[in-house]
Formats: sequence, structure tokens, C-alpha cells
Amino acid sequence: MSKTIAINAGSSSLKWQLYAMPEETVLAKGLIERIGLPDSISTVKFDGRAEKQVLDIANHTQAVKILLDDLIRFEIITAYDEITGVGHRVVAGGEFFKESTVVDDEVLQKIEDLKLLAPLHNGANADGIRAFKELLPDITSVAVFDTSFHTTMPEKAYRYPLPTKYYTENQVRKYGAHGTSHQYVAQEAAKHLGRPVEELKIITAHIGNGGSITAVNGGQSVDTSMGFTPLAGLMMGTRTGDIDAAIIPYLMEHTDDLKTPADISRVLNRESGLLGISGQSSDMRDIESAMQAGNKDATLAFDMFVDRIQKYIGQYFAVLNGADAIVFTAGIGENSDLVRAAVIEGLSWFGCDILPEKNVRGAEGVISSSDAKVKVLVIPTDEELVIARDVERLKK
Amino acid sequence: MSKTIAINAGSSSLKWQLYAMPEETVLAKGLIERIGLPDSISTVKFDGRAEKQVLDIANHTQAVKILLDDLIRFEIITAYDEITGVGHRVVAGGEFFKESTVVDDEVLQKIEDLKLLAPLHNGANADGIRAFKELLPDITSVAVFDTSFHTTMPEKAYRYPLPTKYYTENQVRKYGAHGTSHQYVAQEAAKHLGRPVEELKIITAHIGNGGSITAVNGGQSVDTSMGFTPLAGLMMGTRTGDIDAAIIPYLMEHTDDLKTPADISRVLNRESGLLGISGQSSDMRDIESAMQAGNKDATLAFDMFVDRIQKYIGQYFAVLNGADAIVFTAGIGENSDLVRAAVIEGLSWFGCDILPEKNVRGAEGVISSSDAKVKVLVIPTDEELVIARDVERLKK
Repeated sequence: MSKTIAINAGSSSLKWQLYAMPEETVLAKGLIERIGLPDSISTVKFDGRAEKQVLDIANHTQAVKILLDDLIRFEIITAYDEITGVGHRVVAGGEFFKESTVVDDEVLQKIEDLKLLAPLHNGANADGIRAFKELLPDITSVAVFDTSFHTTMPEKAYRYPLPTKYYTENQVRKYGAHGTSHQYVAQEAAKHLGRPVEELKIITAHIGNGGSITAVNGGQSVDTSMGFTPLAGLMMGTRTGDIDAAIIPYLMEHTDDLKTPADISRVLNRESGLLGISGQSSDMRDIESAMQAGNKDATLAFDMFVDRIQKYIGQYFAVLNGADAIVFTAGIGENSDLVRAAVIEGLSWFGCDILPEKNVRGAEGVISSSDAKVKVLVIPTDEELVIARDVERLKK
Repeated sequence: MSKTIAINAGSSSLKWQLYAMPEETVLAKGLIERIGLPDSISTVKFDGRAEKQVLDIANHTQAVKILLDDLIRFEIITAYDEITGVGHRVVAGGEFFKESTVVDDEVLQKIEDLKLLAPLHNGANADGIRAFKELLPDITSVAVFDTSFHTTMPEKAYRYPLPTKYYTENQVRKYGAHGTSHQYVAQEAAKHLGRPVEELKIITAHIGNGGSITAVNGGQSVDTSMGFTPLAGLMMGTRTGDIDAAIIPYLMEHTDDLKTPADISRVLNRESGLLGISGQSSDMRDIESAMQAGNKDATLAFDMFVDRIQKYIGQYFAVLNGADAIVFTAGIGENSDLVRAAVIEGLSWFGCDILPEKNVRGAEGVISSSDAKVKVLVIPTDEELVIARDVERLKK
């Protein structure tokens, strides 16, 4: 047995999960929040326990040190060198990283260079990588990119109908996101259906606070709803998803609060979506409660949210020229039976259906009838497991 | 028999068509170009003749005077008062104009007010209306709005997931375009199919230099691809169609040529689309020739163009939960057998097909097989006829 840790580093946070491999057993997991701020919080969960401590953590290296020392303190490991691999989620791999990659100095530099495409995320990801390199210099370090699953998209899908120079000089193209999740749930769905993923056309709907839908043909991404950035595609918790881009110059000219690129990014990414329409919450659970209490704005937000999911599913039926299955995953996709029912009931013509007795909270696997021409599944996503598996596979 | 004239006024042009009603016979048609510029050009076509004259025309009133005098000169009418009705195409009707409307002072003022939503177009449309009011003050004047067919869209379709204030205070919502065309070809398609339009679900694809696709349920628009402005939706001759809106603040920060709202509007509306990708032409005929000569950029432009049409058709299959027919119209939709074949051949799963022997230039009516579950049609659009019919219907 070897121990592998999967890391998702944000600018002020570090989420981790420790696995025994190849058994794929979760030994412990945790989250360090408020890195660089007073009263940082570290939580460790293992053996049904949750241990929390509040202390000042100045940077990612200190955070990793505390996490490793906690693993020893709680007797989850006896020494640092029991951990033989670390996998890091990296948001932007650009066109360069087509698959998970062992991190050497050159790779780390390239991840830094790609900060242009995801300034906050890739910077934090690189901080996480460096922190582990410092404390555990000899273990295998692997970068797992959110975008690499989508590098199989054809050019007609990833290019925007903009002047070509913005692609060649500014790298503006569709990169997509949630790649590990789409890949994982497509593979798991194939297992549930008892058929090789290579033979299947699957539409994967990763619907969380952020969300994207992917057209997966034979296990490969051929199109996805997120774009150059994670703003595009579906309506999300606080993000618009697709809008008429000409709204931007219009609002810049006709409002006082939308003048600079920063204003635009803020409003479109943080003040829109479910929050913008409902005026009350970005959380689907709140929207559903308010809707059930008869709130009109919440009902509109719910209806728009479902409408955009249905439209992307329809699009990807066209892109794939048919599909064998639709898979729901992530926070809302796994937990909201209301959203799943509303989406699928509006697509009966496509040959999908949903069984109320199977479409429950905590559902897993097929939730459509045996007659359904297009199967509907719920698959809990597990991005950490994909990361741990990639480390295992790439280990020296 | 009465005579009715249909007018489409641009900022420096005036397109017209004179009908005998209710026979719906075209008596003459023409175009006046370069209004307000030196060497304006007036062309009149009738009885298989085309008469052209070059002269200076200062404004729309002069243009209308010349057009009326030409009608007398060519003995198409004997006196002004033979014309008993005039119909004007108006681009933006906002939420106010839900149907074609007889123009009085109040209506004209409202059309002027809606200039905010279509500055160049509505201003020119109002100039055309005023010119006719001046010269033919007693005839019925009707405004036919490009947007009114789309006012039946449900709120979930026309609202954007932006903060609500941009809708309530700035009127930002989806209005759509090409309404008269979508309405007309849906009705004509129903005749070809021998069924009442009220019973049919039809996806109408108006594909010209500008283009939009509409989901028509029972004769009513329930969703359309153009948005707040005609930038949204499909890839077009020089317009991007849908892109990740976050590309705009990114390019504003990382390029020198995209800084102001005017820069953004120019690049996205005039330098993108087929032109932006091919680097050579915004005209599908040129793209097809270059593609057939093996040009790689033209091939990419064609493939992207087809891809976006397929995606909107797929979307509207979802919105309508199935469809009975897909209708192609407008310049490319009516004339490009290559585009039609590429679109439909990629959608065989949906139950549509296309017969090569029927899919020819100049095709009209059903071009799919008798087995096709979803019929495919070509219907030449006739927006002028819709305008003339609306005048006839609304005449005192």
C-alpha cells in the first residue's frame, strides 16, 4: 500500500484528500481556509471524526506543514515519507497540457505562464505545488488539469468566430472546465450501462454552483459549454452563462456602474445567475424553497436555470447526432431531484424519461425506465479520486 | 384593386415593392441608394425592365418623391392617390409593439423613442415613415416590426441571467429579429405540409448574411437565437454570434485595438464571423468556392458556420420537445445546398434526412424523404409580402 494525496489549492485555501492506493480508500481529508489571513482554520476528517483548529497560517508552505504534522499527530501516517505521491488540480492547462503531467521545473514554469488564462487559480495551484516540493521534494508530483479532457475538441468547436489574430496572438479559444469530473462520470456511467465507454455517446451535466455540460463521444470530449473562461454556457449560481455579448458595450454606455473590464467581470461573474434573477440567493436549495413558497422571482430563476440545461442537452444531441445517456453530477446534479425532473420531463421526445421512485436525493446510477431510449443517470463525481489515480499511474 | 407599397428604409437607402392587393401581384420594385451622398442611385424594376438613374437625393422625402414620380413616369400608376397603403419595416418594436400597428403621431414618437435599442435602424425607419406622411398624408401607414413575432416568447427565454435592474431599468432582454420572415415561412411550411400551423412545431432557420433560428410552436415564436441585439446566436457573415462574454474584458485588458464600446461593437459586428475566420470574405459563396479549392481557413469557417446552425436546431428540438419540420430560408438558407446538406446530414438521429435530387439551388418545399420523421423544407422568404398583407388587413 502507498499513500497519495490529492490537492486542490485556492488563493487562500487548500483542500486535500489522502488515499491508500491502489485500494482507493480515503484515509483522511480536510480543508485549510483563510491562508494568509488571521485565524486560519484547518479541519481534518478521518475515522468518522472531524478535528478543527484555528491558528495563523501565513502561506501555502505553512499550510502543507500543518497538514502533514496533523496526519502524524492523528496517527494517520507515522512519517512524511509514507506519502509517495501528490496530485494537484490545476485549472488552466491551455493548449499545452493534453493530459496529466509529472511536475518538474519546466512544467511548473509553464503552469505559471498559463496564469494569463486563469490569474487567481493557476497562481494558487502553483503555490500549492511549490509548497509540497519544498516539504516533500522526492515524491512524485502530478498536475491534473481541469482543461486537458477537453483538448480533444475539434477546431470547429473550440474556435470562436472572432478575427483569427485573437486566437493566434491572445490564445482566445474555448478551453472548457470540470474536465476530470466529466471524464470520470462518463466512465462510471459506461460501467453502470455495462458497455465500453468507447462505444457510447454521453452527455455529462456537471451542475454545481458553477456548471458545465459536455458532449462525450467514445470517452472523449467533443464539445463543452464553458468557454474561454468559466463564465460561458449554463446559467450558474452567480454567473450569467451565455448572453448577447453586445449587452456589454451597451451597458458600458448606458449605466454608471459598468465602465471598466473589472466592473464587467464582477457583475457577470459574481452578481448574476440565480442570484441576479432571484435577488436573494445563489444557492439552488434556497431557490427551491422560495419557489415552493410561491416566490415569483425564484420560480423564474429556477425555470431559466432548467431552460439553459435543456438547451445545452439539445445542442449536444445535435453535436453527437444522438446520445445513449445523460449523466447528472455535482452539487445540484446529484442532489436536486426537482432540477433533474424538470430537465428530463421536458425532453420526452428525445426518448428519455425519469422514474420518480428512483429520482430521489442520494440516487446513484440509472434513474430512467428500462424502456428509455436515452438512459438518465446520477453519478456522484469524485475529482480527487481521478487525481489520485493519475498519480498512481504516472508514478516512477 | 388597390395598390400598397412595402418600404424598408435604411439610413442611406430605401427599398420598396409595390403590390396590387388583394391579388398580391408585384407591380414594381426598386432600391434607392446613397441618399444624402453625391450620386445617389435609384433603380426601378417592372415588366422585366430595370431602369436606373443617378442623381443627387438629399433626404428620404426627396427619395420618396423620386420613387413616386418614377411610378408615374413609367406608367405604373397614373396618380399618387392610387396608392392607398404603405407598410414600413421597423427593426425595434421593443416590448411595446406586439403586432403591426397603424402609425399615428403617438406611434411614430414611440418608434423614435425605441431608437435606444436600434439607433441606426429605427431612426432611418422613422425617416421613411415621415417622408411618406409628408407626400401621401391620407393613406394608411402601417409599421411592421421585426420583433413583434417574438413578443410571445416566455419570460424564461427572453430574460438574461443578469441582475434584474438591467432589465427593468435598461430594457436589456432578448428581442430577436427577422420576425416577419420566421412567421411567414412557418405559415408557408404548414401549407406545404397540409396541416394547420397551430398543430405544428417548426424550427425556422433564416440564414442570410445575418441569420437567426426560431422555435415556432403552434405558429408562435417561443425562442429565437438573436438576442438583445442582432449580434447573438449564429455565426454570421461578419458577426460572431454567441461567444463567451468574458472575452470582452479580457481583450480590453490585453490588446491595444479593443478599448472602447465602439471598438468592441465594430470588431464583433463587422470584422468577425465568416470574414474573421476565413480572412477573406463574409460571403458564403466565396467561402464555398475557397473551400472547394482546398483552402483550410475557408473550410474551418464553413464547418463552424454549420456547427452553430446544428447546435441551435438541437437547442430548439429541446425547447419544443420535438419538432415536425425544419425550414431553411433567406440568402444562404434558400441557395446553399452545401450548407443545408451539411446541417441535415449531421442530424440523422433526429429523424431528418435530405434528398440530394431535391436539395438543389432554387429548391422550394419539402426536400426530405417521405419517411422523414422531421420534414426539411426550403421556403423563399417574402418579408415585403407580409408587410403588404398587414397593410391590407389594417386598412380603414
